[in-house]
Amino acid sequence: MDNSKHTEFAGLKNIVVFDSFWTPFMDRIRTKVIPYQWEALNDRIPGAEPSYCMRNFKLAAELTHSELDYGVPRDTGHGGCVFQDSDFAKWIEAASYSLLWHPDPALEKTLDDAVDIVCNAQQDDGYLNTYYIINGLDKRFTNLKDNHELYCFGHLLEGAAAYYEATGKRKFLDALIRYAECIDRLIGPEDGKLHGYPGHEIAEMALVRLYEITKNEKHLKQAKYFIDQRGQKPLFFEEEERRNNNNFYWKESFFRYQYYQAGKPVRDQHIAEGHAVRAVYLYSGMADIARLTGDEVLKRACDDLWNNIVNRQMYITGSIGQSAYGESFSYDYDLPNDTVYAETCAAIGLAFFAKRMASIAPKGTYGDVMEKALFNGIISGMSLDGKSFFYVNPLEANPEASLKDHGKRHVKIERQKWFGCACCPPNLARIIASLGSYIHSLNDNAVYTHLFIGSEAKLRISGADISLKIKTKYPWEEQIDISFMMSVKTKFKYYFRIPGWCRKHSIRLNGIEQRCAVEDSYALIDREWSAGDRISLVFDMPVNFVQSNPHVRKNIGKIAVMRGPVVYCAEEEDNGRELFRLYAGNPDDIIVRHDKDLLEGVTTISFTGKWEKDWAGDTLYQTAGTVLEDKKIVLIPYYTWANRRAGEMTVWINKMVK
Amino acid sequence: MDNSKHTEFAGLKNIVVFDSFWTPFMDRIRTKVIPYQWEALNDRIPGAEPSYCMRNFKLAAELTHSELDYGVPRDTGHGGCVFQDSDFAKWIEAASYSLLWHPDPALEKTLDDAVDIVCNAQQDDGYLNTYYIINGLDKRFTNLKDNHELYCFGHLLEGAAAYYEATGKRKFLDALIRYAECIDRLIGPEDGKLHGYPGHEIAEMALVRLYEITKNEKHLKQAKYFIDQRGQKPLFFEEEERRNNNNFYWKESFFRYQYYQAGKPVRDQHIAEGHAVRAVYLYSGMADIARLTGDEVLKRACDDLWNNIVNRQMYITGSIGQSAYGESFSYDYDLPNDTVYAETCAAIGLAFFAKRMASIAPKGTYGDVMEKALFNGIISGMSLDGKSFFYVNPLEANPEASLKDHGKRHVKIERQKWFGCACCPPNLARIIASLGSYIHSLNDNAVYTHLFIGSEAKLRISGADISLKIKTKYPWEEQIDISFMMSVKTKFKYYFRIPGWCRKHSIRLNGIEQRCAVEDSYALIDREWSAGDRISLVFDMPVNFVQSNPHVRKNIGKIAVMRGPVVYCAEEEDNGRELFRLYAGNPDDIIVRHDKDLLEGVTTISFTGKWEKDWAGDTLYQTAGTVLEDKKIVLIPYYTWANRRAGEMTVWINKMVK
Repeated sequence: MDNSKHTEFAGLKNIVVFDSFWTPFMDRIRTKVIPYQWEALNDRIPGAEPSYCMRNFKLAAELTHSELDYGVPRDTGHGGCVFQDSDFAKWIEAASYSLLWHPDPALEKTLDDAVDIVCNAQQDDGYLNTYYIINGLDKRFTNLKDNHELYCFGHLLEGAAAYYEATGKRKFLDALIRYAECIDRLIGPEDGKLHGYPGHEIAEMALVRLYEITKNEKHLKQAKYFIDQRGQKPLFFEEEERRNNNNFYWKESFFRYQYYQAGKPVRDQHIAEGHAVRAVYLYSGMADIARLTGDEVLKRACDDLWNNIVNRQMYITGSIGQSAYGESFSYDYDLPNDTVYAETCAAIGLAFFAKRMASIAPKGTYGDVMEKALFNGIISGMSLDGKSFFYVNPLEANPEASLKDHGKRHVKIERQKWFGCACCPPNLARIIASLGSYIHSLNDNAVYTHLFIGSEAKLRISGADISLKIKTKYPWEEQIDISFMMSVKTKFKYYFRIPGWCRKHSIRLNGIEQRCAVEDSYALIDREWSAGDRISLVFDMPVNFVQSNPHVRKNIGKIAVMRGPVVYCAEEEDNGRELFRLYAGNPDDIIVRHDKDLLEGVTTISFTGKWEKDWAGDTLYQTAGTVLEDKKIVLIPYYTWANRRAGEMTVWINKMVK
Repeated sequence: MDNSKHTEFAGLKNIVVFDSFWTPFMDRIRTKVIPYQWEALNDRIPGAEPSYCMRNFKLAAELTHSELDYGVPRDTGHGGCVFQDSDFAKWIEAASYSLLWHPDPALEKTLDDAVDIVCNAQQDDGYLNTYYIINGLDKRFTNLKDNHELYCFGHLLEGAAAYYEATGKRKFLDALIRYAECIDRLIGPEDGKLHGYPGHEIAEMALVRLYEITKNEKHLKQAKYFIDQRGQKPLFFEEEERRNNNNFYWKESFFRYQYYQAGKPVRDQHIAEGHAVRAVYLYSGMADIARLTGDEVLKRACDDLWNNIVNRQMYITGSIGQSAYGESFSYDYDLPNDTVYAETCAAIGLAFFAKRMASIAPKGTYGDVMEKALFNGIISGMSLDGKSFFYVNPLEANPEASLKDHGKRHVKIERQKWFGCACCPPNLARIIASLGSYIHSLNDNAVYTHLFIGSEAKLRISGADISLKIKTKYPWEEQIDISFMMSVKTKFKYYFRIPGWCRKHSIRLNGIEQRCAVEDSYALIDREWSAGDRISLVFDMPVNFVQSNPHVRKNIGKIAVMRGPVVYCAEEEDNGRELFRLYAGNPDDIIVRHDKDLLEGVTTISFTGKWEKDWAGDTLYQTAGTVLEDKKIVLIPYYTWANRRAGEMTVWINKMVK
């Protein structure tokens, strides 16, 4: 593998975001979501189903250390899901990120106290999972397939790493290192150990992160074992079922062990299959290992999986996981808009995968997909007031169908408050709170800008400290200003992504139009940079009518409207009911208008389209003869749907075919 | 109610069918389906799951009469579904009909012996249900809602009536009269009786049939009680659940007790809801009672339910029941083609309802729907060799989706042999075997011809015996010849349906063009008829491109092709894969060709349409710009799909919209 293209993303320590689009989201996460989630984790939301999450840790600590008394009655059991510990982990990860860009001693104190509670639950041998501590340690590691033990470990490790990075405090990280060692004593290639791996992946990438903090090879080795062992014959999960009489829920499904991406070795996996979040978490770990070990075969599997997702199984919103059954990938070109799952967490996981693929070697596709997911299928998961959340992000919604069609009952038309199984809200919090770390990556002599987010980064490049500042009103406006500061002139390559949606762009360097070489969709300016150098980019943002590959059954004869990276949709609120009767022609009256008072400030698109008229008479079937009339169509950004009244929504609109 | 329009359908005793289209179906039922089903009912099909049906009757008889020994071990339990008795009932009904048009002493002997077995299972008090006889009579009538006791009763009664009509033998009918009396002692309006009704309807129309044989008002009264009591507050099923701790499977569904059409009184029901087969069986019973009692309010409910189905919830194939969840109706204009249920039995039930509505007062819509269901959504349920069956009759099929999409797993792409729960095959047998009884109805001075099926009927009209003969190659050819024979000139009104699909017709009487009055879509010739009088009808049968009401989300921008009453479809076999990429324009090269060697002889339609071309490149999304190329489209009758190789199929095809 050509590792000259390897880059590392600049971390949150080195970047501050001040972006007209994203800062309000980050502030919502910081001021609303993180505090609300802490209350939720502590069962203090009136009227909401309790989480039990912190109570579980307290109870586990009490059961472990008889002198501890958090006041949890010792005969209450473990509450919530088997993976309830991960809610705390995601929360502390998000909260830690927020400390990096918004120091807050009170919040840090809350985190410190929470870490004390969690660490108190740890067993002498390092084990730390409340479900088994409370329900009986004799059962631990008897159902790696379904009981999320290694998943919770991975999330706790991600949380501990973030907390360490934000505060410099090692307590939580050290606890997780001990837990990793405990796992390593029981699971691994050696005889007498379980030859197992996570049923729900994440530990792989978490261990890589730990390795990157500690530089201790044993963590990398443990991650690599989970990757290498996965899907090897005899199948561990099958043997585990036999040994422990575990259920196999997916026996009758077509994906079977591929639900867990564990039906064959990962290097033999070329099509994205099974549970979508698990899949992209695994692929992220695979990409990490491929980069760190130079494993070409593993890299090729990553490439194939990436291409399969992006060219065959990804919604135009960057969402993935088409099927509610198993929250899973289904098959190539199957992209139903109404029965869709498109879990918020899966789009987030796709951004994780994209970031890691970009780390191996930047290519436009990775930045394009990160951007697509972020501006569409990820933030659609949260209401604009930060108080309610979608798990499922449909591209077509119909209140009557959600109520009366059992196959669409998972498609909600209003975001929900908080969930007993609360994966998406804290996952949203952790990606938005760490958004700064998706902007630039660099190696010794090159900086790549992947996302155009208003920010200032302090980067060390070619032995010098530079500052790289982005100013923009992206995605609403076409202009992006990038400026550099440094104390000494420094030669390095500056690459910036030309978005895949952009057909025409201009680049000025210090006011002078440039013709830049473009490699893998990244424009390059290679020069000796001086303080005050500035780049002005203009990415033309005409309204773009987009269609799907003709293999996509559900989008045939339809278009979606995009402008820049933003996907638009029609809502009942603006267009009335039965949106499926709308037709977009080739309008010559498109109006693009920014409305600062609408939906926290959005650019809307409107034009004259057509509408299939009502019939005279009340029959179901008649000799064909469509009658269309003019109809004004008003579109809003997809991510803002369902923030007004509940109603219909559609991304795809009929087109005229002559 | 204006009962001058009431008519009675001419029964099978008075009609013989010899039709180029239908006789092969009837022969297949007689020579293949009925004998095969008898073997199946007796668990004699090698490799097939046993039915247990006749074994249950034998075991129940042995348990009831200690001297009987059919050789069933007494400790074996009841086998198959709780409603397994109904399989025998449907079989004997179909077999009895076949005796009426094809006397067969050996078959009659088989029926006589079977009746002996079944009647031996009857209890002293008249009770006759093998599930409870075997499992414990103390539990009988404790779950009318779900355990199909009154459903089995109703089917047995239909079977007994048919057997009586075919053979003149009263044994089975008398047994069922005793069973009806047993039920009447336990269920009814009087204090101390259960104020219940069937969870799965059919007893209502079966009791009406019994009344029409016996003229004993008590049977009509019992049927009327089931109709009147249904859905009255307090809800019987709710009380029954409480009393007997029964489960309520549909608690979380939007239809709740309307799954059983039992959430409100039937006269307050105006929208078809819940399990589709149950619904149309109930509506059939309601129509029977409305006709016999002159109940205008009940008749209006029937009208509303009819209109709701036909104008809001019926597939173009005459199939109904859109949703696999609960095999149910869903909501107005919801007609998904790929997740569809469209159970064969439901289309059959719709024909029952149509026939009964036509009995109240003939209108074109009833005949149109009977015809539509018969030529499309009913016979699609059986393979052309009579050996395999569809429960679900999709309007769009895709093998990959059936395999990999959990929401379409019920949509089979190949007909199945026989089912453990075998409702559709014997239901198909009984309607096809009784097809003759759907052709004409009459009252004192008028004859109505509803269906154009080659046949000869002996009818008594205006005090005279006449013979009415139809000769036609319908639905492939446009010409229908009707001739009359009688010994004396007789004055009566002869009405015949002008099909709803027909835009242009001509009528000749004894060679002379007629201009006939048309009432409710029935043309009338009112005259004194003489032997040898003949009518020649020509119903123009151009190829008709049909579209759905614009309220139908799933068919917007699409057309279906019909010719006469026959709905056409495109199959992969003729058109390749990805049928959703086909476009039908306004072709000027339509070829209609009868191919006697194809699919047992069908008329195909072909024309030059369009096809959305492949993209260069391998992306999912691109700026819109559809490129179409010419493509020959070949269509076959819908009912014949899936009789060659398994593959894709679609009824609805994209249309060009300018």
